[in-house]
Amino acid sequence: MTLEAIRYRSGSLQILNQLLLPHETVYEEIRSVQDGYEAIKTMKVRGAPAIAIVGCLSLAVELRAGAGGDDLVSFIRDSLCHLTSARPTAVNMGRAARELMEFTENESMEKNTEQLRDSVIGWIEDMLERDVNDNKKIGNYGAQHILSGVPRDSVTILTHCNTGSLATAGYGTALGVVRSLHALGRLKRLYCTETRPYNQGARLTAYEAVAEGFPATLITDSMAALTMREKGITAVVVGADRVVANGDTANKVGTYQLAIAAKHHGVPFYVAAPSTSCDLSLESGRDIVIEERPPEELTSINGVPVAAPGIEVWNPAFDVTPHQLITGGIITELGVFLPSELQAALTGRLTAL
Amino acid sequence: MTLEAIRYRSGSLQILNQLLLPHETVYEEIRSVQDGYEAIKTMKVRGAPAIAIVGCLSLAVELRAGAGGDDLVSFIRDSLCHLTSARPTAVNMGRAARELMEFTENESMEKNTEQLRDSVIGWIEDMLERDVNDNKKIGNYGAQHILSGVPRDSVTILTHCNTGSLATAGYGTALGVVRSLHALGRLKRLYCTETRPYNQGARLTAYEAVAEGFPATLITDSMAALTMREKGITAVVVGADRVVANGDTANKVGTYQLAIAAKHHGVPFYVAAPSTSCDLSLESGRDIVIEERPPEELTSINGVPVAAPGIEVWNPAFDVTPHQLITGGIITELGVFLPSELQAALTGRLTAL
Repeated sequence: MTLEAIRYRSGSLQILNQLLLPHETVYEEIRSVQDGYEAIKTMKVRGAPAIAIVGCLSLAVELRAGAGGDDLVSFIRDSLCHLTSARPTAVNMGRAARELMEFTENESMEKNTEQLRDSVIGWIEDMLERDVNDNKKIGNYGAQHILSGVPRDSVTILTHCNTGSLATAGYGTALGVVRSLHALGRLKRLYCTETRPYNQGARLTAYEAVAEGFPATLITDSMAALTMREKGITAVVVGADRVVANGDTANKVGTYQLAIAAKHHGVPFYVAAPSTSCDLSLESGRDIVIEERPPEELTSINGVPVAAPGIEVWNPAFDVTPHQLITGGIITELGVFLPSELQAALTGRLTAL
Repeated sequence: MTLEAIRYRSGSLQILNQLLLPHETVYEEIRSVQDGYEAIKTMKVRGAPAIAIVGCLSLAVELRAGAGGDDLVSFIRDSLCHLTSARPTAVNMGRAARELMEFTENESMEKNTEQLRDSVIGWIEDMLERDVNDNKKIGNYGAQHILSGVPRDSVTILTHCNTGSLATAGYGTALGVVRSLHALGRLKRLYCTETRPYNQGARLTAYEAVAEGFPATLITDSMAALTMREKGITAVVVGADRVVANGDTANKVGTYQLAIAAKHHGVPFYVAAPSTSCDLSLESGRDIVIEERPPEELTSINGVPVAAPGIEVWNPAFDVTPHQLITGGIITELGVFLPSELQAALTGRLTAL
């Protein structure tokens, strides 16, 4: 089975509320852009690709219901601006917003309001389908690349956070690579970090691993280096919230530390991300603004206080892994590239595996 | 103020139940060796030095109440053997047991039962006092060594787990170094990791930091590398459950990963431990048996499930940091030594700062 985190039929959108996982499986109706914004902001949906998909689908649903009236272009612009502000580090929503806005403006020159409404909805529905297909390509390219280093053996993968069906429109990025390895019968074991403070690994990746039947083991974030030393990790594969031109990668906090540990142990470190997560407009990771989240994410778990009252907290949601530490490569739907090749590959000047 | 984790008066022992911190401050009466064993096993008391102190004091209390009858030597031997088995990785209890047994056997040749009872109790009471004094020396040596590298500035320290008054008879080891820096007016800030899965950092170190008025910030374990890069960490200082002859150090899981991150950032990495935590009988860290603890420590917090049901778990309680990564030194009550100097220093062939 593959988990269905996003249920969309024309005019209707439901999302699996990930805040309630793994204990409750509850789908919530998204009827408007504001519903979409709140689902993203409160992390009922998370993962950079899924944020963009749900944001745009929430717009499609409201458009199908007739929102925007005669000034459709302004309505779409305001809606996309609002959606982009919900989680600023994830680049996919911003990119989707720019592309959809450009498309909308071009279409608006030739079409009347109702034709424009249909074509914008069509664009968004295509985006959903493209995302799943891109993820399958990422999974296959990544699996082949990792297996090319170990022609006969099954492999042991360590991953961080959640990058599976729950983070994308379906299939997954880094967890899509794991899914492909498992489908090939070559996955010996997956180690997933619990991914504090939000426990996406313990709650979501573990949930997907159990649901899919992967041989999988949960560890704390602090055990990753020991796991590399003791458990024969073949590769570390993580997702990305944003990859910039030189290959520097913003991803869930802890990724940077994992990359340092992987380098120390000579374990290849891969980033799996669709090209829509790549932002060539930024030269290096120094230019990425990192979102800081509320202290309560550290000081309580499911409403239960776990830290000493009065302690100060630093809670950056992401960190930036310098391209030098991405030793395996960046796995995209176009192939697997070294950080130094990324810019050329994405601008069509290079094709790789 | 200094927290009083162990309250001892001749014939009476109370310990602060650390499982209930930081929310409840409850002292529990320890009336027997079995009470002491259970307090150690269930982690009401933790930290290698505190385990040895509480273990031995529980014996002193039972001896004062008249236990052992005429066969005092057998009673003491059996009691020490039982206490040592409660947490096998912590070396201090084992060492205290050996030394006390040797003392007991020697004394038993010259003294009658009641004289022997008094002298064994006296030995244990001396041990309590010595532990506090040794910790104060560790604090001062460590602070001086760290400050020698930054003659004018105040310093920012990162620590892991809890090594303060709650882990020792008082004052603390790594947190004792922080305490000394604070007393000198040179502590700019302490960063403490929450220390999954048992949250000793979030619960205990944060509790001590708030109680003592240290400027302190809680981070997740996964943020340590980012903190080193962004927050100007002067040194990492951790405790030890066991330091072996070549300087390899067993400590709370996550220490190894911190040491790798410190090395990557050129941040000096210190281990603070009394000489009683050093075990020269083992050549290298490969010989240390690492305790594995129950999966429930990862899958639930305070009884609240936090992980997907059915996921497998690996939960090693400790890891071993190779001596090559202990770049600052090993801080003992005898001075600060490089790992390569440790053996000579502890056997009296070398004296250092």
